[in-house]
Amino acid sequence: ELLGVRYPIIQTGMGWVSGATLTAATAEAGGFGILASATMTLEELAQAIAKVKARTTAPFGVNLLPNQADLAKRIALLVQESIPVASFAGAPSAAVVQELNDAGITSIVTVGAKRHAEKMVGIGVSALIAQGGEGGGHTGSIPTSLLLPQVVDACAGTGVPVIGAGGFYDGRGLVAALAYGADGIAMGTRFLLSAESQVPANVKELYLKSALTATVVTEAIDGAPQRVIRTDMIDALEKSPAVLRFPKAAMNALRFSRESKTSLLALLKTGREMKSAQDLTWAQVALAANAPMMTKASMVDGRPEVGILPTGQVVGAIGSLPPVAEILETIIAEAAATLVSLR
Amino acid sequence: ELLGVRYPIIQTGMGWVSGATLTAATAEAGGFGILASATMTLEELAQAIAKVKARTTAPFGVNLLPNQADLAKRIALLVQESIPVASFAGAPSAAVVQELNDAGITSIVTVGAKRHAEKMVGIGVSALIAQGGEGGGHTGSIPTSLLLPQVVDACAGTGVPVIGAGGFYDGRGLVAALAYGADGIAMGTRFLLSAESQVPANVKELYLKSALTATVVTEAIDGAPQRVIRTDMIDALEKSPAVLRFPKAAMNALRFSRESKTSLLALLKTGREMKSAQDLTWAQVALAANAPMMTKASMVDGRPEVGILPTGQVVGAIGSLPPVAEILETIIAEAAATLVSLR
Repeated sequence: ELLGVRYPIIQTGMGWVSGATLTAATAEAGGFGILASATMTLEELAQAIAKVKARTTAPFGVNLLPNQADLAKRIALLVQESIPVASFAGAPSAAVVQELNDAGITSIVTVGAKRHAEKMVGIGVSALIAQGGEGGGHTGSIPTSLLLPQVVDACAGTGVPVIGAGGFYDGRGLVAALAYGADGIAMGTRFLLSAESQVPANVKELYLKSALTATVVTEAIDGAPQRVIRTDMIDALEKSPAVLRFPKAAMNALRFSRESKTSLLALLKTGREMKSAQDLTWAQVALAANAPMMTKASMVDGRPEVGILPTGQVVGAIGSLPPVAEILETIIAEAAATLVSLR
Repeated sequence: ELLGVRYPIIQTGMGWVSGATLTAATAEAGGFGILASATMTLEELAQAIAKVKARTTAPFGVNLLPNQADLAKRIALLVQESIPVASFAGAPSAAVVQELNDAGITSIVTVGAKRHAEKMVGIGVSALIAQGGEGGGHTGSIPTSLLLPQVVDACAGTGVPVIGAGGFYDGRGLVAALAYGADGIAMGTRFLLSAESQVPANVKELYLKSALTATVVTEAIDGAPQRVIRTDMIDALEKSPAVLRFPKAAMNALRFSRESKTSLLALLKTGREMKSAQDLTWAQVALAANAPMMTKASMVDGRPEVGILPTGQVVGAIGSLPPVAEILETIIAEAAATLVSLR
């Protein structure tokens, strides 16, 4: 395994969810944990890295936003702290990948289509996570059963390993991923629903009672397709005409600023940074700020009635909150038994 | 294998597509072929069975509509002809399953959710096909990666074998299905796009050039979610307000009657039979008649501009029209190599 861990299982970077506690638990238990830094300031990221290191000597990674204004400073921090892996949900530029390669940092990018995979391999990315449409948060339309073999084909002969994501929760799935040609699996929802996850208990309960059909992919939150649990809030957002979503998002931003005690200045600053970096319209900025703010309302403040609940469809197959070590060991034991049964 | 065939691969019953030629080719090549009888009269079914038997001594099955008016006669025909398997896309009644069991005919039912699987096992069905949402034609919303292990769990300890369907096209997928606990795979689109498939060449070309993102699940054809290639016709249907779809469907029925040389009497007869059997409204009958008629326009008449193109999302991973024997042998060889690589 490229990442130098015991088990070929990655815990993905989930905004407001995969902080130091969960990441350290995953790393210490033999998986590869990833800190979500998009929802942290640079200072908070430095503190989180220190906190993980205080709890484990095992390697772990950091998830970065490809267009974050202070990306160079964050990469410098990873170099300084000898963090071996930087992961991206969206496509990083060739220059960023080059910078990471030069610094000896392994880059992992999540892709949802074969052509994205080919492009990322072309700019020198170290490894890919192929996330099928059943995956959580921002996601594509091609399911794991089709995406994973296609991305493996795209990487054939390049030496770039592929990790399967979307719909994985047990050892049978791990072996299925290996059969498709993957080198391991990445999971988000399964780790969100662990004992060590810091998500409020009332929110975890909402996830646990959700069925396989309880999720929806919507563009109403920030304009990009995102899989969340279907709630009254989502229905209301989807019913809003597109032209009304900008003022609604702006009002949400103000409301969350007040309700979540995030200063409006900090919020606007994030918006400005995103705007300068990505050349978005202000309407897009307001919408883009919507997703992390609405995720925070659920995941940090425990107020799902005013927030969103990003999730993989796999939520319907998960009914308990075991410790991370138990999750990993159960999957590995089941995978071993599955491999024996295939002989 | 319950079905007594060389390879654990089923060619599903596809209306207007899996006739005698394709079914015989599959059976002769070592797979398990299924004749689609819903789009045949009883007499046509008898002729198709005779035609398959003239071409191969291998076993094959017949797909039945659970509520067809002459279902008893069709089952009697299967008994008389020693057909070993009856398959159903929709749920048969407990009485029908009992009748098949008493006659020694293996019943196979396609399910799209765990609770459907539990219900079918409860009424004594012999085997299940778990079709993930990426599958073609009428389909559910749970992808193969989640549905297949859930249905396997539902059948644990019952001795009822589970066949995976939806997204399968190669040997890696076959091994993945086995890892999830399935006993084999079923494929439709892969066989539709074979040399022996009798679908007109211009229609096969449309399928071959379709991408993984070219399909859509729509309820606009007959009120039930159905995966088809997104065409101008589908966009037009989806834009029609629901209240306008009944007269449109009725007009379509009349038009297809004229264009496809199907007598209006035959069409109305099918409608009446469906109505008496299922207690549908006439509007529902007109809509239900829409799907087979619009499929016929493409698959038999070669006129996709006035028809529909049912397909699995897998169509985007398929780029050629090999003979059925080559399809099966390639999958088996690749599966064997995959199993070796997992050791």
